[in-house]
Amino acid sequence: MDIEGLITPALILDRRRLLSNAALMRDRAGRLGVTLRPHMKTAKSPEIGRIALGCDVGDADGTGPVTVSTLREADYFRGHGFNDILYAVAIAPGKLDQAAGMMSWGLDLKIVTDTVQGARAIAAHGSPFQVLIEIDCGDHRGGVADGDAALLEIAAAVEDGGKAKICGVMTHAGQSYDCRTPESMAEVAEIERRAAVDAADRLREAGFSCSIVSVGSTPTATFARDLSGVTEIRPGVYMFSDLFQAAIGTSRIDDLAVSVLASVIGRREGDNMALIDAGGLALSKDRSGAVLDDDPGYGLVCDPLTCRPIGDLRISAVSQEHGRVTSPSGTPLTLEIGSKVRILPNHACMTSAAYEAYHVVDGGDEIIARWRRCNGW
Amino acid sequence: MDIEGLITPALILDRRRLLSNAALMRDRAGRLGVTLRPHMKTAKSPEIGRIALGCDVGDADGTGPVTVSTLREADYFRGHGFNDILYAVAIAPGKLDQAAGMMSWGLDLKIVTDTVQGARAIAAHGSPFQVLIEIDCGDHRGGVADGDAALLEIAAAVEDGGKAKICGVMTHAGQSYDCRTPESMAEVAEIERRAAVDAADRLREAGFSCSIVSVGSTPTATFARDLSGVTEIRPGVYMFSDLFQAAIGTSRIDDLAVSVLASVIGRREGDNMALIDAGGLALSKDRSGAVLDDDPGYGLVCDPLTCRPIGDLRISAVSQEHGRVTSPSGTPLTLEIGSKVRILPNHACMTSAAYEAYHVVDGGDEIIARWRRCNGW
Repeated sequence: MDIEGLITPALILDRRRLLSNAALMRDRAGRLGVTLRPHMKTAKSPEIGRIALGCDVGDADGTGPVTVSTLREADYFRGHGFNDILYAVAIAPGKLDQAAGMMSWGLDLKIVTDTVQGARAIAAHGSPFQVLIEIDCGDHRGGVADGDAALLEIAAAVEDGGKAKICGVMTHAGQSYDCRTPESMAEVAEIERRAAVDAADRLREAGFSCSIVSVGSTPTATFARDLSGVTEIRPGVYMFSDLFQAAIGTSRIDDLAVSVLASVIGRREGDNMALIDAGGLALSKDRSGAVLDDDPGYGLVCDPLTCRPIGDLRISAVSQEHGRVTSPSGTPLTLEIGSKVRILPNHACMTSAAYEAYHVVDGGDEIIARWRRCNGW
Repeated sequence: MDIEGLITPALILDRRRLLSNAALMRDRAGRLGVTLRPHMKTAKSPEIGRIALGCDVGDADGTGPVTVSTLREADYFRGHGFNDILYAVAIAPGKLDQAAGMMSWGLDLKIVTDTVQGARAIAAHGSPFQVLIEIDCGDHRGGVADGDAALLEIAAAVEDGGKAKICGVMTHAGQSYDCRTPESMAEVAEIERRAAVDAADRLREAGFSCSIVSVGSTPTATFARDLSGVTEIRPGVYMFSDLFQAAIGTSRIDDLAVSVLASVIGRREGDNMALIDAGGLALSKDRSGAVLDDDPGYGLVCDPLTCRPIGDLRISAVSQEHGRVTSPSGTPLTLEIGSKVRILPNHACMTSAAYEAYHVVDGGDEIIARWRRCNGW
């Protein structure tokens, strides 16, 4: 079967680009002397997790380490043979039963907290949780701030019941997404490193074990110069990359591994506009590209076979099942009704989430595999 | 089971509000003398389709008419006993096999086109398709423009092979979403009506059958004063409504029937900020509320039991699995770690699409049913 036979919209994954992106990040981790614990929040696929780890897709040895964004992902990856999983969102007390349940199946699960109240709930559960404390390195989303006395209170509260143990710290420099140069991303990577290492030092000085010092975002993992004291990085979107990542310089347009296959369903010659059957649900309403110099709208329109942009065609507007193709420069649209295009997305994590599975190609148009995703909660 | 036992984030549907919204729209259709062909693109649930039609949820007689936005929805509703279905997006030629396949099971399926090229593909397929021509009434998305000679060319091309037949016209006044007053929505409703009726008249004068004259959006269906010549309306989001619809006046905040249940997972006292476990995936990145006078961010934060807004708390930022709760007026946040909130969404169609199912309540906190959705393509 080839792309032409797919029902549109459909999510296409180019394995060649994925393999190349995955190898590059493994090389970086190797050079920096840290473990790569890839974040599966973007791909949500065990096959892709194995590729990220450098194993064969069907290799049962590809068991981690990985990072997940939901407990459903943790359970799905566990069911596919992964055994070393970090759930990298501060856990809601209502989810501790689920987490303990997975551990009872033998899963080496690590959980995260960043409040004394959360730590007390973890301790009170009475299960042997392995806990990382989240550190705020400047993103000001979650995490304990630099120097905050809460760090040691949280650690003490976690270990208060004698069952749960502190095993490390983790931080995420979300502010790296505001950077536009390799230099500024390298600077944020150093801030991220220092915040994690300082917190780990404080914990160790107070007598807590802290074997994991975990950092990471795709921009900081890509441009970090030195990760002394860090044990692992957790980038995720680098596997696919997207228009936002390409624009800020962590990849090139030709590296983008996921795209949405769509059919042309309308033409409006006078307005030099075409309609495709991929709209807000198929592309997501993510507009992260709006802050870029050349706003790609809801995605760039590409050749269905090569997945290279066609002139400056882009999706300038969406409704639920319609996408509007226009050309800012006025390039005449020659898309025929029924012809296919591929759309490169602003944000691979959000766009991929609309699909149950990837249709995998290897640079060409033949579908070589179908890999399921684990969506929802 | 009650709400407290759900894994968050979860989609909650208040049946009481749904029943009331559904009854109001049936009353309007009755007063206007038109058939209600509810658009299932928002709810994507046969149970909710039956409620929209005024039947019991388990009633096998609730077989239509309904409107769908994807062929997968058509097939799902067919599998649940619905028999009169309009697929209201111009069909891609590559989907004609699917459509013909459903008809071979006895489904009374209507399809749509708005180009001569599309019409030729339909005729060439050789199946007895029933075809509506889409008319542009001012939204300038799809549709044949007022007075365009293409209308009759398309009709002739559809019937050229002797199998497919024209059965009507349909239009959608998407520009009604730009209105802010009942008067302006009533005016757009009249423009929508006239465009559809005029096109139907032209087709009939040229000898084509045109038994269906279909219009509709929630704003125009709500405020239309007269629908002479129209046979059916296709509103959809009215069943749930959302913050955008409430702000433009088609419903009130207390009518909103879907919300996202979330858990508080973080606190930042100094910034008067809390974090919940519902982010961009759970709430969608839809920012349709940004054009309103009081921008709700990514949603309003409500009491978990009553689903009434808590002060002016809202979701001011999201990342994939985090939502940031803030108060523009500085209302002190007293949300405890682990406590639940419900979030009213900007756009019910987009937010609901992230979930496999609705957890149904009846005004209170007891879960009385779980209704599946048909997502994807």
